[in-house]
Amino acid sequence: MGSLRFLSPKEESQFQHQGAVELLVFNFLLILTILTIWLFKNHRFRFLHETGGAMLYGLIMGLILRYATAPTDIESGTVYDCGKLASSPSTLLVNITDQVYEYKYKREISKHNINAHQGNAMLEKMTFDPEIFFNVLLPPIIFHAGYSLKKRHFFQNLGSIITYAFLGTAISCIVIGLIMYGFVKAMVHVGQLRNGDFHFTDCLFFGSLMSATDPVTVLAIFHELHVDTDLYTLLFGESVLNDAVAIVLTYSISIYSPKDNPNTFDAAAFFQSVGNFLGIFAGSFAMGSAYAVVTALISFLCEFPMLETGLFFLLSWSAFLSAEAAGLTGIVAVLFCGVTQAHYTYNNLSSDSKMRTKQLFEFMNFLAENVIFCYMGLALFTFQNHIFNALFILGAFLAIFIARACNIYPLSFILNLGRKQKIPWNFQHMMMFSGLRGAIAFALAIRDTESEPKQMMFTTTLLIVFFTVWVFGGGTTPMLTWLQIRVGVDPDEDLKADSSQQANNLDRNPTKAESAWLFRIWYGFDHKYLKPILTHSGPPLTTTLPEWCNPISKLLTSPKAYGDHLKEDDTDCIVTHDELAMNFQEQAPLPSSPSAELNLDPKASLKIPSKENIYEGDLGLGGYGLKLEHTPGQSQPNSLA
Amino acid sequence: MGSLRFLSPKEESQFQHQGAVELLVFNFLLILTILTIWLFKNHRFRFLHETGGAMLYGLIMGLILRYATAPTDIESGTVYDCGKLASSPSTLLVNITDQVYEYKYKREISKHNINAHQGNAMLEKMTFDPEIFFNVLLPPIIFHAGYSLKKRHFFQNLGSIITYAFLGTAISCIVIGLIMYGFVKAMVHVGQLRNGDFHFTDCLFFGSLMSATDPVTVLAIFHELHVDTDLYTLLFGESVLNDAVAIVLTYSISIYSPKDNPNTFDAAAFFQSVGNFLGIFAGSFAMGSAYAVVTALISFLCEFPMLETGLFFLLSWSAFLSAEAAGLTGIVAVLFCGVTQAHYTYNNLSSDSKMRTKQLFEFMNFLAENVIFCYMGLALFTFQNHIFNALFILGAFLAIFIARACNIYPLSFILNLGRKQKIPWNFQHMMMFSGLRGAIAFALAIRDTESEPKQMMFTTTLLIVFFTVWVFGGGTTPMLTWLQIRVGVDPDEDLKADSSQQANNLDRNPTKAESAWLFRIWYGFDHKYLKPILTHSGPPLTTTLPEWCNPISKLLTSPKAYGDHLKEDDTDCIVTHDELAMNFQEQAPLPSSPSAELNLDPKASLKIPSKENIYEGDLGLGGYGLKLEHTPGQSQPNSLA
Repeated sequence: MGSLRFLSPKEESQFQHQGAVELLVFNFLLILTILTIWLFKNHRFRFLHETGGAMLYGLIMGLILRYATAPTDIESGTVYDCGKLASSPSTLLVNITDQVYEYKYKREISKHNINAHQGNAMLEKMTFDPEIFFNVLLPPIIFHAGYSLKKRHFFQNLGSIITYAFLGTAISCIVIGLIMYGFVKAMVHVGQLRNGDFHFTDCLFFGSLMSATDPVTVLAIFHELHVDTDLYTLLFGESVLNDAVAIVLTYSISIYSPKDNPNTFDAAAFFQSVGNFLGIFAGSFAMGSAYAVVTALISFLCEFPMLETGLFFLLSWSAFLSAEAAGLTGIVAVLFCGVTQAHYTYNNLSSDSKMRTKQLFEFMNFLAENVIFCYMGLALFTFQNHIFNALFILGAFLAIFIARACNIYPLSFILNLGRKQKIPWNFQHMMMFSGLRGAIAFALAIRDTESEPKQMMFTTTLLIVFFTVWVFGGGTTPMLTWLQIRVGVDPDEDLKADSSQQANNLDRNPTKAESAWLFRIWYGFDHKYLKPILTHSGPPLTTTLPEWCNPISKLLTSPKAYGDHLKEDDTDCIVTHDELAMNFQEQAPLPSSPSAELNLDPKASLKIPSKENIYEGDLGLGGYGLKLEHTPGQSQPNSLA
Repeated sequence: MGSLRFLSPKEESQFQHQGAVELLVFNFLLILTILTIWLFKNHRFRFLHETGGAMLYGLIMGLILRYATAPTDIESGTVYDCGKLASSPSTLLVNITDQVYEYKYKREISKHNINAHQGNAMLEKMTFDPEIFFNVLLPPIIFHAGYSLKKRHFFQNLGSIITYAFLGTAISCIVIGLIMYGFVKAMVHVGQLRNGDFHFTDCLFFGSLMSATDPVTVLAIFHELHVDTDLYTLLFGESVLNDAVAIVLTYSISIYSPKDNPNTFDAAAFFQSVGNFLGIFAGSFAMGSAYAVVTALISFLCEFPMLETGLFFLLSWSAFLSAEAAGLTGIVAVLFCGVTQAHYTYNNLSSDSKMRTKQLFEFMNFLAENVIFCYMGLALFTFQNHIFNALFILGAFLAIFIARACNIYPLSFILNLGRKQKIPWNFQHMMMFSGLRGAIAFALAIRDTESEPKQMMFTTTLLIVFFTVWVFGGGTTPMLTWLQIRVGVDPDEDLKADSSQQANNLDRNPTKAESAWLFRIWYGFDHKYLKPILTHSGPPLTTTLPEWCNPISKLLTSPKAYGDHLKEDDTDCIVTHDELAMNFQEQAPLPSSPSAELNLDPKASLKIPSKENIYEGDLGLGGYGLKLEHTPGQSQPNSLA
């Protein structure tokens, strides 16, 4: 029977304060975490990263909450029969978690009931709603990842990143799914699980959620140590896009419903799932970009920093929420919204708003990250329905390593066939090592913890997150040293060196393989038409559109675009640095180009004083558009090559 | 019988999306509001303020949600008997609102039941938790008010402000309580209410929550129009402190429990309430200040802007939450936390953090304000248990005007006896007119809507908020013109004029009446001991403490404090400008003072190049401590005087 517990007015008022108490616990954890980060930063201590620290504090706090606070025993509340419902409770706590799968897992009931009866109201409130997790905490992190994407390097390695993110995640998902299916069969064999409880789709579901690698911990360390830019970009791109892929994959698998036996392969349902995947991904992408375009158009006109910032923030969040509300994937939408905002809207913002938005999103990202890692620590002890199964956990640990290896090494091999600039072995080992699991895997696992298989998955996910964040996160610095990967790289210095190197070897073009023709076409289109329409930068439309479009193009072009005549001649600047250099060398002698402003010395021509830079998305504080931009180049492979 | 409604897995997934839908509705409202603000700003349209606009949109959206969305009839969900609880729902909605006061208001049941059964799940979710209101939305607004307090003017008028805030609020509360008691008696007489349902304490409760005047709308207009600084300061100080007083008063009255008949006067219980009031106020004040002092000490040492900002934010919020958790009043704590942060911590922040915190709190304030006003608009149609009683509403409208008049005019008369610079009639009329009710009154009313009297109060409060924000808020600009109050005042210009005027009339000291001896002592203490301990500014402790304390004072003094030798001679700078000027004139001839740096011309001596300025709390963006500070003076009374 579900036990109904009523709170008297006195308890009620305590209850109201509890909202404050829980928030206070989180605040306290965050303050502790920040103080620890500070201490670590002062002592340059890198064996436990801040995210690991946040988790540790969460864990300790969970332990305290679990064992030091008095359990609100069911006897201490008044238990009413249903017949007494006519009395006057103002708040009703209904404990039905123990009932949920009663009919299915009868043998678990007695154990669960005991747990549930000792259930602590505090603990229950601390395990907050996954809705908050998804709708409030994740969007700023993902948005920030998109907004602060280093577009230049990202697009140079786009081919490889997409391969890792899409193909790699699919491989990882299938490999984990297969290995787990083997372990599930073994569990059935030793009698830990009944046949039919755990389908192959469940294994694939676990595989897909386990395939989301976490960009936070490793990249924070990379960023701090200034690790080789190419490695950074590959890992960043992979882990950001891979989250999006894993989320959509998880969703597609969860709605995969073969007509008959869920264990058999149903081609129709499979293709339906693939279709779902593509549809959801494309839809989310479109939704996110559309919101960013709307923001760009609005920010085109708005001149009040506070209103601009407000609209920017709200529209970006709306991109997430609309996608969720429409049954698409908010994370994907907000990721691409962030990328598009950085590409278009950022150019239209006043310098005040540029700084505000950047700092605001940085801060929100910082807080959300720490809340999530604290919360993951807490969840180990405050979540009430953990199912620890040694065999399943062992299998999962094995599976993620094998799957990561099957993802990185074969794909790197294939990519190296096409890449002029190979991905060296030490990069591959480092990518293998950097397969941490974090917030997204956790968020996907906590979203559904109703059935026993799902609870087992959640527990296992949590343990894997702990292990990878602590062990791999802590081991990142030693591993970098051991693999002799370059650290302390100044990206600007790096670029200068590369640029001069490349200027002398224009025929050797390592980036060409990466920057496919499709993207060159896209960039030409973007630069000629989209940027002038959506932002204050770029060449005026009057010069890029055919002459008969003049009335329209005059209407659409920002008056500011006419100000900078230099822009007219960088219409052909597309992706790679050497094309750019060549374009300039070709154009320079032409009378139409204001070559007077350009020093035609090959090295100097690499510094193009253009406000509009299609490569740079660093969002440097206020420096954007003011300092001379260096054109991109490839960084040196590594210290060993 | 309480009806239990279960959601099937399908519904469950819709339910998860609903979190997104509701947030999206709010986002949409906020975006609309911001676009409207933008439009208004462009057209300098001031008859509907942005807060009024936000409420209007909320109202329209509430109307749409109420009448255009299909009500989730109770029949459409599956209704289970308690006996069927063994089945497997994953989410349980228990509709017991109709049961709460069943035994008390039997005649209401049938009506309520119908309402509840037609209850719309969407509507129920839109009327969000007062906990969120209190714990998340209010703190940033109140903190921002404290943080951006113009301390100079505030302390000049402190006596008057405290009189209005404490005495005025008490008068207002009692007057409203008495008038409402009369109307309640009348309601009982005409049979709209049963005797004993509505006690005198309930009337006082209503009086206290109705006494919280809203600082947002009027002051935003004042700020935009640059209204006379004295009027601005009086109104700002009154409405900010008055919120704190009203909240503590409401709380004290709600826990006032005479032993016998709640209608009789019980001296013990009354003094208990007064004691409660004082204890809660003092405790909250201490809690808020303590957190700010801790922040100041931490920020004294920390050098990482992001960590600093994070700690600043979290500790300030913790001040609120700790006070709430300890049974004190968070709003009061966070208000004084803000003031103390601006006074001490702000001096220790890096210039980056100064800007970050200021922009962050500004932005949070902006969003929270608009969310609250949108939400108030929504609540009129989405709240399910409104009780409109014409007599009660009429009484309330009458009461608030009479109470405001009883507050402003007599107190101004008394204050004018003591003030050298009188509060003129047009200021008094404007203050009378500016008694808007807003977020705090609403928040206090929504916190408890369980009994019928409380529901009636909530409905009435909502209507009064609408009326005052739209009518008085919209009428502010015409009223200013009509009362011939100076607008377009540049505070700096104003001060210069005053200062030179004062320099010629050193014996005429209009501010002396305001700056009481107690505050001069406090300022001396603060300047000599607290500022040097808690911040990088102020004179080194070694000069202010007796010599035998030297070892301790050396330990406690920031190394930076020794840098600026000029500070040593401004140790006597206390409150009023003319004392300051006199001190300098006395000190200048002494050999110990570096008079070489000071021009002893009386006018020039008013500009003291001191980093530490006890009057200035404007938190100007980065300008703090860099520009020459003008010493304060009184602004001219008004354009008429």
